[in-house]
Amino acid sequence: MEVLPLPELVKLASEVLETAPGEAFQYAPIGRHLGNPHLRAEIARFHGAEPDRIFVGNGSLQVLDLLAGHLLGGGGPSPVYVEAPTYDRAWRIFERHGGRVVGVPLEGDGVDVEALRALVSEQVPAFFYTIPDFQNPSGVCLSGEKRRALVALAEEFGFVIVEDTPYRRLRFHGADLPLLASLGGDRVVTIGSLSKILSPGLRVGYAIGTKALAISLAELAEDTYLTASPLSQAVAAKSFEHGLVDSTIRSVNTFLEPRHDAAVAAVAQVFGDDLLAVPGGGYFLGVLADCAVAEDEFMASARDAGVLLARGSAFYPGARPTPGRLFMRLPFQALTEDEFVAGVRRLAEVLQ
Amino acid sequence: MEVLPLPELVKLASEVLETAPGEAFQYAPIGRHLGNPHLRAEIARFHGAEPDRIFVGNGSLQVLDLLAGHLLGGGGPSPVYVEAPTYDRAWRIFERHGGRVVGVPLEGDGVDVEALRALVSEQVPAFFYTIPDFQNPSGVCLSGEKRRALVALAEEFGFVIVEDTPYRRLRFHGADLPLLASLGGDRVVTIGSLSKILSPGLRVGYAIGTKALAISLAELAEDTYLTASPLSQAVAAKSFEHGLVDSTIRSVNTFLEPRHDAAVAAVAQVFGDDLLAVPGGGYFLGVLADCAVAEDEFMASARDAGVLLARGSAFYPGARPTPGRLFMRLPFQALTEDEFVAGVRRLAEVLQ
Repeated sequence: MEVLPLPELVKLASEVLETAPGEAFQYAPIGRHLGNPHLRAEIARFHGAEPDRIFVGNGSLQVLDLLAGHLLGGGGPSPVYVEAPTYDRAWRIFERHGGRVVGVPLEGDGVDVEALRALVSEQVPAFFYTIPDFQNPSGVCLSGEKRRALVALAEEFGFVIVEDTPYRRLRFHGADLPLLASLGGDRVVTIGSLSKILSPGLRVGYAIGTKALAISLAELAEDTYLTASPLSQAVAAKSFEHGLVDSTIRSVNTFLEPRHDAAVAAVAQVFGDDLLAVPGGGYFLGVLADCAVAEDEFMASARDAGVLLARGSAFYPGARPTPGRLFMRLPFQALTEDEFVAGVRRLAEVLQ
Repeated sequence: MEVLPLPELVKLASEVLETAPGEAFQYAPIGRHLGNPHLRAEIARFHGAEPDRIFVGNGSLQVLDLLAGHLLGGGGPSPVYVEAPTYDRAWRIFERHGGRVVGVPLEGDGVDVEALRALVSEQVPAFFYTIPDFQNPSGVCLSGEKRRALVALAEEFGFVIVEDTPYRRLRFHGADLPLLASLGGDRVVTIGSLSKILSPGLRVGYAIGTKALAISLAELAEDTYLTASPLSQAVAAKSFEHGLVDSTIRSVNTFLEPRHDAAVAAVAQVFGDDLLAVPGGGYFLGVLADCAVAEDEFMASARDAGVLLARGSAFYPGARPTPGRLFMRLPFQALTEDEFVAGVRRLAEVLQ
């Protein structure tokens, strides 16, 4: 995270330490395993949801791990459908919990819903996992139409949708699209994170689902690590209360918007239609390009040219992208405009 | 934890916030997944072990969960042998990771090593789990002789011993017994916790094993929650550095010793030889008593008499204690001497 409100976080953390040190350093009181009630009330306001539907854990990846354990636990191997490409740590978590992970092609406006329908018709999954806003690794946003179609599909076949939303508030252009949870009643679980909008080091993430789901996650969390960090949760609660989350979102977006715009211009110029989508927010652009050489060789050449990329195929569970095509995740958030443009030009040379 | 050095913790946490706020609120640097190097160096000194054999996680239960995932992951169901009774959250973690948990009778000087040998001869386990010092729930200490016998057995049959040591430093009487790790080379993994000797709210625990094991745990942790709380780790490191762990151990022991002594006297008077062991430290006394009624009925009567107990049978995986016998965990750390003595008398009346 490039824009971190350090002095404000230090000030609020010091307030927590002075006014409620017992809360920070003692075991959480019995019955607190859903998370700090003050923080859950603030998250509830942030999302327009009821506090007792909210479970708070040590970062959103940990929450996803507990959720996967809950949704996949007990039974035999179940299918989990995900976008392809998708966040690599997520699909590896699902596999570790016994899920049989199947990728569904991602298009410029989100997952191919008809391909998902075909899969679901064959076998109903434990859940479908999506990152609807400014997806990691592709930058793609799920269109409003597809959001409604997905929720209708989940209703028709009776499966859970897990929507992971770490980048949702990092919107530089256009209007918000509805959360799937706002369209889908009880079938959608929303995962949220403060890592991109307050502080990654706090390790605070949450899930919003039914009350019963929140309790199940809390019980599993208690059996796994007793309680999430009380100090981090108290600092997060105070940050919401004092408007620090809102002001950090504004600062981050002001900081990232020109980087996004310059990155889009540079990639469109160099890669044309191979740019999967113009995100309008988030951290990433995705490119799916022709490539005559194997991925290993491409990555070695890119490295020699001074460009370090994540391995594109790692974002595809099982099946790789079409043979002869190469997926690249291009993160624009941590590079200056000049650095990013120079990197894209070097990549284009490597691919020629 | 009854004795919590709150003002000192607040002071050291404030120092961390003022001198290294980036460390507290930013992602940990790449390659930090073993844990904060400063903290690992302090734990290394505390244990006389090399820092690169140490992995730090969000509390010792989380570390145990990762360790179980590592030792049980991948293969089919493996046996895990544990003391019976043992810490209930531990054996449930092992089951959740696919372990087939088998209890081995606990005697006044530790696990029945010959019974364990018979089991191991039949099938070598993924690991044997023990709480060698002031065991939860029984207060039993593993004798020096049995420690050596266990380590020899692990060598002979080639299995891992996991020793969990949260109460080890809470010794009020007698001399330390050697850590199994100090007797057993590479086959023993030591789990440690700061919850009883500094602060439970910090959620800092660790494992000490081989370098390869530490790296495996770090990779699994990264795939599960990215990094353990940077702020908590920095506060823990500073606490070691400033002698706060040592002084807290002294305060806790000074506080608990009279509670232990009064509890032992009261239980010996009321329950005689049914007291499993005189611990000389820790939090618990264990009693295995005759009981004519079912456990549910006993617990209801105890509750009516104003005594809230954990369910004794929950500490026994699979098999229960001998029929007609009842196991009671009697925690003396959170009650005054008078409260404890009164509670024991009420329990004796319920049992008559």
